[in-house]
Amino acid sequence: MLDNTWFVEKSYFEKFAMAWKVRKKLHSEQSKFQKIEVLQTESVGKLLLLDGKTMVSEIDEFVYHEVMAHIPYMVARKCEKVLIIGGGDGGVVREFVKHKDIKQIDLVEIDERVIEVSKEFFPECTQGLDDPRVNILAEDGIAFIKSKTNEYDVIIIDSTDPEDFASGLFTSEFYKNVSNALTEEGIMMNQTENPFLDEWGVGKIYKNMRAQFPHVQSFTAPMLIYPGVFWTFGFSSKKYQGTQLNPDKIRHMQSLERSLKWYNTEWHKGAFALSNFHKKKIGL
Amino acid sequence: MLDNTWFVEKSYFEKFAMAWKVRKKLHSEQSKFQKIEVLQTESVGKLLLLDGKTMVSEIDEFVYHEVMAHIPYMVARKCEKVLIIGGGDGGVVREFVKHKDIKQIDLVEIDERVIEVSKEFFPECTQGLDDPRVNILAEDGIAFIKSKTNEYDVIIIDSTDPEDFASGLFTSEFYKNVSNALTEEGIMMNQTENPFLDEWGVGKIYKNMRAQFPHVQSFTAPMLIYPGVFWTFGFSSKKYQGTQLNPDKIRHMQSLERSLKWYNTEWHKGAFALSNFHKKKIGL
Repeated sequence: MLDNTWFVEKSYFEKFAMAWKVRKKLHSEQSKFQKIEVLQTESVGKLLLLDGKTMVSEIDEFVYHEVMAHIPYMVARKCEKVLIIGGGDGGVVREFVKHKDIKQIDLVEIDERVIEVSKEFFPECTQGLDDPRVNILAEDGIAFIKSKTNEYDVIIIDSTDPEDFASGLFTSEFYKNVSNALTEEGIMMNQTENPFLDEWGVGKIYKNMRAQFPHVQSFTAPMLIYPGVFWTFGFSSKKYQGTQLNPDKIRHMQSLERSLKWYNTEWHKGAFALSNFHKKKIGL
Repeated sequence: MLDNTWFVEKSYFEKFAMAWKVRKKLHSEQSKFQKIEVLQTESVGKLLLLDGKTMVSEIDEFVYHEVMAHIPYMVARKCEKVLIIGGGDGGVVREFVKHKDIKQIDLVEIDERVIEVSKEFFPECTQGLDDPRVNILAEDGIAFIKSKTNEYDVIIIDSTDPEDFASGLFTSEFYKNVSNALTEEGIMMNQTENPFLDEWGVGKIYKNMRAQFPHVQSFTAPMLIYPGVFWTFGFSSKKYQGTQLNPDKIRHMQSLERSLKWYNTEWHKGAFALSNFHKKKIGL
């Protein structure tokens, strides 16, 4: 029913699938860590795959990248030093560099080939990587975080699904190390999967987060290319609620918002009002 | 890549697809209007198809049905007489009958076979159809609405995509007739498609709504089985904003909410705070 002109991603234990009509395969390589492919699709522009899973598309990448960066930025009272674990496509960095008060952005991506391939095929995403405040470190984020204490104002876990080398990014032990690496007012953001096709156990992820952070919240934003689309994200903080926007930043954001494709502060506040279904799935 | 044990729904001009692993085909018939099928799937329980398009699944039907009924109910100051056009599965009726102050619910479904098939395979959805306040009319909603003036407090357009016999449910002329059929404080609700895979022209639908209603708003809720999942819904009123909850009903809803799977008033208010993307797509 779908011939070989389609890329098919099966998920939910091979019981659900999403598929994209492909015009051309632009790139394919096996890196030290994973298979990296870039497809030219008919529906979502260029599409980055890691080990056969959709990661980034031109049509919807702005959603994930804007919410991951601007939500914690708008809550944090001080946001000078940021760490991104994963996120080799550069999209989250691109959003953070829009804020002039950020002094340092460390991007720890285990697979430097993801960065290089993104630079070639997704230059819209990687445009922030040349900013002088950005340090790119081709290291394992799980090991990196262990050596850090009270250092980052915001840490973003921009990960793949909880399997293979990314599975360690969803454990209580990892979240403890993130908490230690954060300052007293620090904020952790992470992607926490689709709750309908609950292949990975959303409830367990949030339980692990709550074991290490006093404030753990969730919100959703759509990721058209991810299985099930309705995507949950975690907001964890030692001090703040996700809806406590820093009043000193409102004017700056109102100006920036006009050029953003997804984020605005009204949406930000509304996104944390959860459905009964969402609350139940994360154990509230 | 997907064999004949999968049901595949192509959309977006055959460039995108979603697919469901099928355990068994439970039913198939050609009614006077369309092909009606019921599949037993591995991922979303029983799945109703009309002309090969996903309509209702056991796993996520509560989202659509709860938001379509409880949002207008909570805004309307008077909600005694309700009209549902389409919605032969009965899910929206099931939610409305939970409110004792509603006196009459007219369900105008063009294809009575949809109702009968739903009764057989989706009894969870149709359980409200036996309520004495419910009148089931096997008629064309477009013709039905023309004969009504100042009659309904809430009208729900529970339609398929804007094609074939449903295309007339998205025109400015139809919305004018709906407006005429509504009371002075009346509210119209409708499903308005996915804005990423914008196959049907979301902007045009909202333009048509705005041509007939002074207050037109939009919100989103996920429909896992619909193409692109991220689903927009329209709220149109002669008098009220979608976030103006009727204070007299808050206590009643707080009690009812405990048994609902999706809706709560906090989510209701937050859902109307739109992303920049959503605003742009609907022409704001």
